[in-house]
Amino acid sequence: MNANQSNKIRAGILGASGYTGAELIRLLSQHPHIEMKLLTGDRAAGKPLGTVFPHLAHLKVPTLMKIDDADFSSLDVVFCALPHGTTQEVIARLPRHLKIVDLSADFRLYDLDAYAKWYGHAHKAPELQKEAVYGLTEIERKAVKGARLVANPGCYPTSAQLPLIPLIEAKQIDLDDIIIDSKSGMTGAGRAAKEEMLFSEVSEGIHAYGVAKHRHAPEIEQGLSKAAGRPIVVNFTPHLMPMNRGILSSIYVRFANGATAADLRATLERKYAGEAFVRVVPEGVSPATRHVRGSNHVLIGVFADRVPGRAILLCVEDNLVKGASGQAIQNMNLMTGLPETTGLAQEALFP
Amino acid sequence: MNANQSNKIRAGILGASGYTGAELIRLLSQHPHIEMKLLTGDRAAGKPLGTVFPHLAHLKVPTLMKIDDADFSSLDVVFCALPHGTTQEVIARLPRHLKIVDLSADFRLYDLDAYAKWYGHAHKAPELQKEAVYGLTEIERKAVKGARLVANPGCYPTSAQLPLIPLIEAKQIDLDDIIIDSKSGMTGAGRAAKEEMLFSEVSEGIHAYGVAKHRHAPEIEQGLSKAAGRPIVVNFTPHLMPMNRGILSSIYVRFANGATAADLRATLERKYAGEAFVRVVPEGVSPATRHVRGSNHVLIGVFADRVPGRAILLCVEDNLVKGASGQAIQNMNLMTGLPETTGLAQEALFP
Amino acid sequence: MNANQSNKIRAGILGASGYTGAELIRLLSQHPHIEMKLLTGDRAAGKPLGTVFPHLAHLKVPTLMKIDDADFSSLDVVFCALPHGTTQEVIARLPRHLKIVDLSADFRLYDLDAYAKWYGHAHKAPELQKEAVYGLTEIERKAVKGARLVANPGCYPTSAQLPLIPLIEAKQIDLDDIIIDSKSGMTGAGRAAKEEMLFSEVSEGIHAYGVAKHRHAPEIEQGLSKAAGRPIVVNFTPHLMPMNRGILSSIYVRFANGATAADLRATLERKYAGEAFVRVVPEGVSPATRHVRGSNHVLIGVFADRVPGRAILLCVEDNLVKGASGQAIQNMNLMTGLPETTGLAQEALFP
Amino acid sequence: MNANQSNKIRAGILGASGYTGAELIRLLSQHPHIEMKLLTGDRAAGKPLGTVFPHLAHLKVPTLMKIDDADFSSLDVVFCALPHGTTQEVIARLPRHLKIVDLSADFRLYDLDAYAKWYGHAHKAPELQKEAVYGLTEIERKAVKGARLVANPGCYPTSAQLPLIPLIEAKQIDLDDIIIDSKSGMTGAGRAAKEEMLFSEVSEGIHAYGVAKHRHAPEIEQGLSKAAGRPIVVNFTPHLMPMNRGILSSIYVRFANGATAADLRATLERKYAGEAFVRVVPEGVSPATRHVRGSNHVLIGVFADRVPGRAILLCVEDNLVKGASGQAIQNMNLMTGLPETTGLAQEALFP
Repeated sequence: MNANQSNKIRAGILGASGYTGAELIRLLSQHPHIEMKLLTGDRAAGKPLGTVFPHLAHLKVPTLMKIDDADFSSLDVVFCALPHGTTQEVIARLPRHLKIVDLSADFRLYDLDAYAKWYGHAHKAPELQKEAVYGLTEIERKAVKGARLVANPGCYPTSAQLPLIPLIEAKQIDLDDIIIDSKSGMTGAGRAAKEEMLFSEVSEGIHAYGVAKHRHAPEIEQGLSKAAGRPIVVNFTPHLMPMNRGILSSIYVRFANGATAADLRATLERKYAGEAFVRVVPEGVSPATRHVRGSNHVLIGVFADRVPGRAILLCVEDNLVKGASGQAIQNMNLMTGLPETTGLAQEALFP
Repeated sequence: MNANQSNKIRAGILGASGYTGAELIRLLSQHPHIEMKLLTGDRAAGKPLGTVFPHLAHLKVPTLMKIDDADFSSLDVVFCALPHGTTQEVIARLPRHLKIVDLSADFRLYDLDAYAKWYGHAHKAPELQKEAVYGLTEIERKAVKGARLVANPGCYPTSAQLPLIPLIEAKQIDLDDIIIDSKSGMTGAGRAAKEEMLFSEVSEGIHAYGVAKHRHAPEIEQGLSKAAGRPIVVNFTPHLMPMNRGILSSIYVRFANGATAADLRATLERKYAGEAFVRVVPEGVSPATRHVRGSNHVLIGVFADRVPGRAILLCVEDNLVKGASGQAIQNMNLMTGLPETTGLAQEALFP
Repeated sequence: MNANQSNKIRAGILGASGYTGAELIRLLSQHPHIEMKLLTGDRAAGKPLGTVFPHLAHLKVPTLMKIDDADFSSLDVVFCALPHGTTQEVIARLPRHLKIVDLSADFRLYDLDAYAKWYGHAHKAPELQKEAVYGLTEIERKAVKGARLVANPGCYPTSAQLPLIPLIEAKQIDLDDIIIDSKSGMTGAGRAAKEEMLFSEVSEGIHAYGVAKHRHAPEIEQGLSKAAGRPIVVNFTPHLMPMNRGILSSIYVRFANGATAADLRATLERKYAGEAFVRVVPEGVSPATRHVRGSNHVLIGVFADRVPGRAILLCVEDNLVKGASGQAIQNMNLMTGLPETTGLAQEALFP
Repeated sequence: MNANQSNKIRAGILGASGYTGAELIRLLSQHPHIEMKLLTGDRAAGKPLGTVFPHLAHLKVPTLMKIDDADFSSLDVVFCALPHGTTQEVIARLPRHLKIVDLSADFRLYDLDAYAKWYGHAHKAPELQKEAVYGLTEIERKAVKGARLVANPGCYPTSAQLPLIPLIEAKQIDLDDIIIDSKSGMTGAGRAAKEEMLFSEVSEGIHAYGVAKHRHAPEIEQGLSKAAGRPIVVNFTPHLMPMNRGILSSIYVRFANGATAADLRATLERKYAGEAFVRVVPEGVSPATRHVRGSNHVLIGVFADRVPGRAILLCVEDNLVKGASGQAIQNMNLMTGLPETTGLAQEALFP
């Protein structure tokens, strides 16, 4: 850490006018060791934060500026909340002394070919990709601690991998029969003005989208495959529904090696016993997204299916917190040597 | 039909103060051949309909009365929209000249033992059960035409069976690997005042419920087993979400006998080609519940999965219309010799 | 009417890809005497209706086309549901044999100066403006019957004028103390992709907008002033809230000439006694927007205030039906000699 | 303060199973100087908090107990979040060493006759009423500091009085022409299971309720009358709408003594210049409830009306925070000598 007057870590947020940017600011405003020194937002450059996020108007934070006008030399860490596509080039230009948490998808796939296939163009910073650490904190904690560049996981992949990876590592589930049916709130789709995201197009209904072709599928598969030691292909079917925040992933698995639902539960309870943010809910309890709204918590439920040999895993998170900005801060805490939970103690807002 | 002054079919609605009762009245008010002669509602007996449903206050319909005070002799058909449990005894006491569509679960399970197991008590009208016809119209049309007592299907079972039964009959899917992940609006849970159904407990969130023990599972399995000619057990996981109307069932199947997603699509298109209310949407289109809101339509989408050998079926309906009152009227039309679509021409209300 | 094969009135809808366009199609599909012969939608020209409104995909209606490619000679009536601004020029070019209902604001203000002031440019069809009839049906029925061009009222103005005009005509309220606090669903803001209309910007909240400068204020004032015989200025404060359809106008008035709340109620009951679509609800009942959703009904409540000398009027409508497309059809029925309620018998969809 | 091991203030919450109780726990869990030592909930007595509020299941707080079983001797402060009616008797029995913040309406009206009239029965603790201080913090700060028993204001009254009292004190508005049109989220109606509060009865609509007879009217009038030095009667019309949290009060006033909208704005800006939780938003900005969701902030907008001589005040709050539990903690902080903002630094959760 460079020295600075306040002895706080000096942070910049690139892309502060989107939802994950606002969420970073909301959470960091409660963080005792962070000073927000730079906020960028190209469309709103020159304007105070309150013009794009009135709920944050009273915060003492810098005016929004263009990335190109930013002075990165006086920062310690950067959160990059830019849209997919521009991120690789932006991060490639940042000074090497910075620790970076990237919330986009640009550095999540280790395999450059897979990246090119799913994103439609060659990776623009292949060298940087090599040093990127996938920041699913509870799974990759050790690597995150030593990382300079963390690729913060996607919202869906976080909710899918946290319940599945321990079970794969324990060899308790069939690797070729994993179905992930996810339901997401609308903030997961971002803040861009699109007809299909208008209130009247979204309220009072539900639909699947990106069926069999959503870009989070390869990200999920990368994590599961690493845990399994061999390639895994999953069914991943996301749905959009009328809520702001929250993802519920309902995951259907088949037992392997004689495991039972009780075994799966025991594995997950053991894995997450010491974790501050991941909890296995009691038997018979069905976790609800509204019970993690605004918090960094993840709740996991385990049910035996009526179909012999099968179990149902239910996992909820707030897509903007554990699914994005909260996990980003959790990772930043690790990268800078702070206690992992610093600034993330807020309880869920219910109702 | 008995003679009557207006030459209209004289209908009674038992349980007119619940949501399916109101929906019957809404739809029947547009039906050219029905006269609503009797409405019962025990708690609101003696009061006009507008006191329980202000949106229907201007209709010229009878005042609500107690069932015990009703004169059934002058009716032709009865819709029974009573809660589960009381229905068997009520229907057993009705005059034999009446044609009856029962919207409760009381006559849906042919197997009396299964009924006793899932509903916790012995069937109270086992003789009547023998003559009950399961009213999934597009599948059981012939039987419905000749029926005196129709057990109208449950909302979830309608959305699950319509896509699955033709594929089972065509032997195109694996009978032992069927996963049904359903998302329902809140009217499916009825109008009883319960804490867990309050606006603030339900809005802005989603959760699964009745996991691995919902009573619609045996109903679905009964229909699929009949189509297969052998017992089938399915995974059925219902979820409650913040919308009034609509069910989306996302169904995950494995191919059998070398079938492909295109084969499944062709089978469903062939099956429903002549149907007024069931449509297979074009390839790549994901059906949305909001596109059938208020109508008797069912939309089915078919997608090949990325996982080799698997497909995804998406089926949407309005749980109060095709999932309850609309299908009840469709059945009544058949039972009384009217064109099947009479009174059901309303388009979906979107947005 | 020109002759045509089906003996139906041949209608065109200009701007069929917006919400009022879709609502016209939904309602006209149930109209026994209308044949939809032309649908325009410039951005979606060449595509079937189902691509912009999947819920209407099964209707047998023409493919969308550009206005410039339309043949108006074979039509009898045109509904114009175009955005403000382009409408005057489009309508000015239409053949004179057509009867036209314009749902935009372009012909609503009789005073060309007022138009120029509020809309920021000179009127582009001042001659046509002279023959335009303001289509608040219950108030202007006689003029509508003889009209060739009807300016269909705005959604807010309909909900404000229906309760106020009879009271002004009866000289029962103070003309200089009228406060109209309106709450609207989001479809009132149209289907354009704007950030402030995204689900996540609108759900779970409410805010006023256009405070003291909304363009519906002069429209309301025009109608009230005509009823009063002298200029009236009102407070009109609209709010946007998370629902699709519905407007509730809560109107605060002061008595004049010794009138009481009972007098106001009696006046409104008398005025609307024979109306099919406007009802005064019983004393003590508070009308709810959800009780008119999808229908052409308007409900009005009247309450004495605790503040001596004041009353509260509550008026609800569906902004897309009585506030737009329903009233447009009601007017078209009158213009073409059909019974006024034809095709508008659908009951509200609740819940 | 009594001594205690942790040197923290030991707090009890009576009525912890309702929404204001949960909100107290959510906020106090972040409060550095409070230890929650007692939670009561008669229906759920003996159960852990997580059974009534799963989102708080991981907190280290006492199991719920019956009030009658509680030991109050080891507490310093009590928050009373019981339903109206039982509160007076409960508080009358509490030991005198306790500082009490009562969130019910039981001690808000100073006038025992007014209480009896509006609540339908004589006050059950008239002696205690004499020492109760009305806890509208920014207005009654000095009295709150010295209080033993604070009557925490109602949600609507907070949103109405904060903008109005300074203007009345400044003699800038007409005392006999105040109209308060309030829109509230559903948590304001509590957690009791009632049909009219079900999701399907509330979503997708709005309606007024308690028109001209809501019990918050006399509470508002008491505060305004005190500021004016003479009795004031106001129009207060509350509405219920489909959101969880938030109140927007749109207040219509007439100028007095030649004041202008700019004068009103200046008065409010001056009054609240040093306040942590109340802000006047910039000219032209319309405050939205979603911008204070979950926070203790109040935003006030001021607009000149088009009607000469009138202004519009818009005031938003979170009804569960500044309108209930947040303000209760703010008051407790003052009563116990802590900095007023302690534990209340959380930003709004948007979206």
